[in-house]
Amino acid sequence: MKDKKILTGKQIIVEVGDLKIGGDHPPVFIAGPCSVESREQIMATAKALKSIGVTILRGGVFKPRTSPYDFQGLEIEGLKYLREAGDSIGVPIVTELMDEKNLDIMLEYTDIIQVGSRNMYNYPLLKTLGSVDKPILLKRGMSATIKEWILAAEYLAAYGNTNIILCERGIRSFDNYTRNMLDLAAVPIMQKETGLPIIVDPSHGTGVKSLITPMSKASLACGADGLMVEVHPNPEEALSDGPQSFTFDEYKEFFNECKR
Amino acid sequence: MKDKKILTGKQIIVEVGDLKIGGDHPPVFIAGPCSVESREQIMATAKALKSIGVTILRGGVFKPRTSPYDFQGLEIEGLKYLREAGDSIGVPIVTELMDEKNLDIMLEYTDIIQVGSRNMYNYPLLKTLGSVDKPILLKRGMSATIKEWILAAEYLAAYGNTNIILCERGIRSFDNYTRNMLDLAAVPIMQKETGLPIIVDPSHGTGVKSLITPMSKASLACGADGLMVEVHPNPEEALSDGPQSFTFDEYKEFFNECKR
Amino acid sequence: MKDKKILTGKQIIVEVGDLKIGGDHPPVFIAGPCSVESREQIMATAKALKSIGVTILRGGVFKPRTSPYDFQGLEIEGLKYLREAGDSIGVPIVTELMDEKNLDIMLEYTDIIQVGSRNMYNYPLLKTLGSVDKPILLKRGMSATIKEWILAAEYLAAYGNTNIILCERGIRSFDNYTRNMLDLAAVPIMQKETGLPIIVDPSHGTGVKSLITPMSKASLACGADGLMVEVHPNPEEALSDGPQSFTFDEYKEFFNECKR
Amino acid sequence: MKDKKILTGKQIIVEVGDLKIGGDHPPVFIAGPCSVESREQIMATAKALKSIGVTILRGGVFKPRTSPYDFQGLEIEGLKYLREAGDSIGVPIVTELMDEKNLDIMLEYTDIIQVGSRNMYNYPLLKTLGSVDKPILLKRGMSATIKEWILAAEYLAAYGNTNIILCERGIRSFDNYTRNMLDLAAVPIMQKETGLPIIVDPSHGTGVKSLITPMSKASLACGADGLMVEVHPNPEEALSDGPQSFTFDEYKEFFNECKR
Repeated sequence: MKDKKILTGKQIIVEVGDLKIGGDHPPVFIAGPCSVESREQIMATAKALKSIGVTILRGGVFKPRTSPYDFQGLEIEGLKYLREAGDSIGVPIVTELMDEKNLDIMLEYTDIIQVGSRNMYNYPLLKTLGSVDKPILLKRGMSATIKEWILAAEYLAAYGNTNIILCERGIRSFDNYTRNMLDLAAVPIMQKETGLPIIVDPSHGTGVKSLITPMSKASLACGADGLMVEVHPNPEEALSDGPQSFTFDEYKEFFNECKR
Repeated sequence: MKDKKILTGKQIIVEVGDLKIGGDHPPVFIAGPCSVESREQIMATAKALKSIGVTILRGGVFKPRTSPYDFQGLEIEGLKYLREAGDSIGVPIVTELMDEKNLDIMLEYTDIIQVGSRNMYNYPLLKTLGSVDKPILLKRGMSATIKEWILAAEYLAAYGNTNIILCERGIRSFDNYTRNMLDLAAVPIMQKETGLPIIVDPSHGTGVKSLITPMSKASLACGADGLMVEVHPNPEEALSDGPQSFTFDEYKEFFNECKR
Repeated sequence: MKDKKILTGKQIIVEVGDLKIGGDHPPVFIAGPCSVESREQIMATAKALKSIGVTILRGGVFKPRTSPYDFQGLEIEGLKYLREAGDSIGVPIVTELMDEKNLDIMLEYTDIIQVGSRNMYNYPLLKTLGSVDKPILLKRGMSATIKEWILAAEYLAAYGNTNIILCERGIRSFDNYTRNMLDLAAVPIMQKETGLPIIVDPSHGTGVKSLITPMSKASLACGADGLMVEVHPNPEEALSDGPQSFTFDEYKEFFNECKR
Repeated sequence: MKDKKILTGKQIIVEVGDLKIGGDHPPVFIAGPCSVESREQIMATAKALKSIGVTILRGGVFKPRTSPYDFQGLEIEGLKYLREAGDSIGVPIVTELMDEKNLDIMLEYTDIIQVGSRNMYNYPLLKTLGSVDKPILLKRGMSATIKEWILAAEYLAAYGNTNIILCERGIRSFDNYTRNMLDLAAVPIMQKETGLPIIVDPSHGTGVKSLITPMSKASLACGADGLMVEVHPNPEEALSDGPQSFTFDEYKEFFNECKR
């Protein structure tokens, strides 16, 4: 691909504080609720995750929702709770930035900035994040081709930021048995094409709780540099993505299965 | 769909100055180059289109390109040329806004603001455009479901703007014979579901020049409120989308075929 | 495509008795129930269709059903009823052959042999039908590429039969708003690539009754050589495809709209 | 799914002579050329596979080819070579049946009958194979939904044969970076829904040689009961599927990686 000038395939290790992601470093476990819903919820989740094992705490505070009438996130308030929760257990945090207007507060509070599936083609946002001194978690667009995804990463790189963690999260298919179609071949492909670490999000990638553990094991087996899953103190009352969220006990079982 | 509170299906006629779009009003012909490349190019195109027949002049000035190394548009300079060209032939203009930072200059210069396929899920942008006093041309995302597209329009409406022209531009499919798969059933579906006018872009919808006229006739036959096509003084030298752009002579033939 | 040796694009007019299909001949209207369910049902349908306007009578007698426990068709008994019904109104009949074992009886009773979507890749069947002296209605496979469909027709031609009517019936997509995604660009593409006539089946192509008429008008506008729709005396009691079947009154409205 | 009356999810172990497939039995390795091309080719391949490790020998003798002008297989001659090769190394053989007319000779010579992707919807064939006393390898149709695939297996079961090995071989997607999109979530889904063993074919599932080993490891990690790969003495001269075929040395490396 003539368009790859920076991400030529040479291995890149992403650093988040002391944490190293990619190459021969152990896979990272990113976990937390789809949305930060309250201080209590995220603090309790963080504590439970810490006791089991977690590398990075996730939680949505600005939420891209298909309907304008759905819960849109706690926004800055939620961001502060997430920071506090991450600090309380001593792990870095990651959350999604949807709007450049919130970049400054993001830079102040978060360790990794997530670009969600709906923004993979948002080139102005990618250009801006190219000049930022934070790692970027770049999710694949919901029907992005491998080539488009590579070039979205190249946008970040072209504007100066190669601290990129890719995230496969399932693509659109003709079948609605699962929420999305997890494309695990993307793991070795993207590693080879870009040299970047890549993690897998089997929660969105399947939308079916019982598939998360087998798909996570498959992800690690084909070389994924980490996993990102949704965990909630009480999935049935979650404001978003409840059905695909683990309880703490389910996360424990998942974590132990994957660690083996 | 419980999420439709404003766009319930009641017919909405969009007004652009004296021009009315939707319902029983005659279909609009939106034409112009993929990108404004120079003052000469857009002025010459406008003049030629005027002599044949055109309702609205289009031209990209901020261009969402898959590669960061491709031509990204003339930006504000191009916007001013497009305005001048539209004025010179007395028709309104439409161009794409990718980044809220350019909203003020857009509001000053353009008549209709286009939200491109890559931004259909850009909810912060939609919220902002919901509070703007200009018609919005909302293209379908490249793999957006009907429901997601309806709700993207509902975002604009929920934030105050119901002057929305929908645009079907083809979706992703498994076949690469055409660039995209034109989904004409979306025309009657979206009209019924939202009440909004909908136009079809067969240039992007097929990517094959010889298919533009038959697909345009099909679009009008199933009720489309307009068409948007790409026209360039010299398609072979176009900086983007040359192969699917009409020459002036080809546009004349197309226009006459469609008018019948 | 180097594989096209016979269907090179030169126009082919298919003859069914005195009826000519393709080129400048008027579009054919193929109508009838999804399944022949009884002698009474098909005779009544034929009579009603005749009074409105119909070129060819359709009716399934061997039914490819997704579940082994669904109604599988009246088989040979149904075939005889369909023949009787066609004769009673003086129009040719078409029905699907699924299994070569029924070829002889098919040759005896039907005028056109349909190859259904599920059999487009059934190359032994295509080879056999290549040596048969009857026109073949070749439906597109549910996710067949343009190239695969062309070559399925080429199988028939290579084995000796170029009396082929193609039928676009919608393809698989990521959206389930409609049953299938009608790909009307296939109409001019297939005509140009193969020279064969092509009809459109908007009943299966959308699965939504209110979309059949607009999509039929669109089909004719882009050059389709005919339409095939499902009609049933009482759609609510149909053994298959009821929701997309017209009543006699609905067919009348459809027919008059399309004739304009 | 109300249509599942026999394959309710209760575990089924498939037996091929002494070999047991499914449940806790070790994964099977099915390997061999896409097509049997000559006695020498299949005998040499069998010998090489035996020296490395192989559970079942595969080889196509009736080949479903997209073009009528491509090599269609050695047919019965090839079947006899495959039998001889399997016997020479003492492992069972599997090959595809496309046409019921060849059933008797198949029953005489092969141990497992493969239903290819193009025939998953061939219900007359499935009904016939339902009454046969041989295990069936049922590949997923190229755009078959999970539900359709389950019901294709149910066709076999409903007509009397529950000795079914499912095979995921990749589905159609919008991206052409890989030949197909391997859907590994289908592995745990199909096991749970049907109780049947399921193997994965990463050769067709990706079409890219370097992806076969990582995808095989992923398949085993999420519970696949076996793998099927293409091996050829000289892939560059293969009459079909050369680019995705392993050399003997490549197979050795693959086998050792997977065994770990």
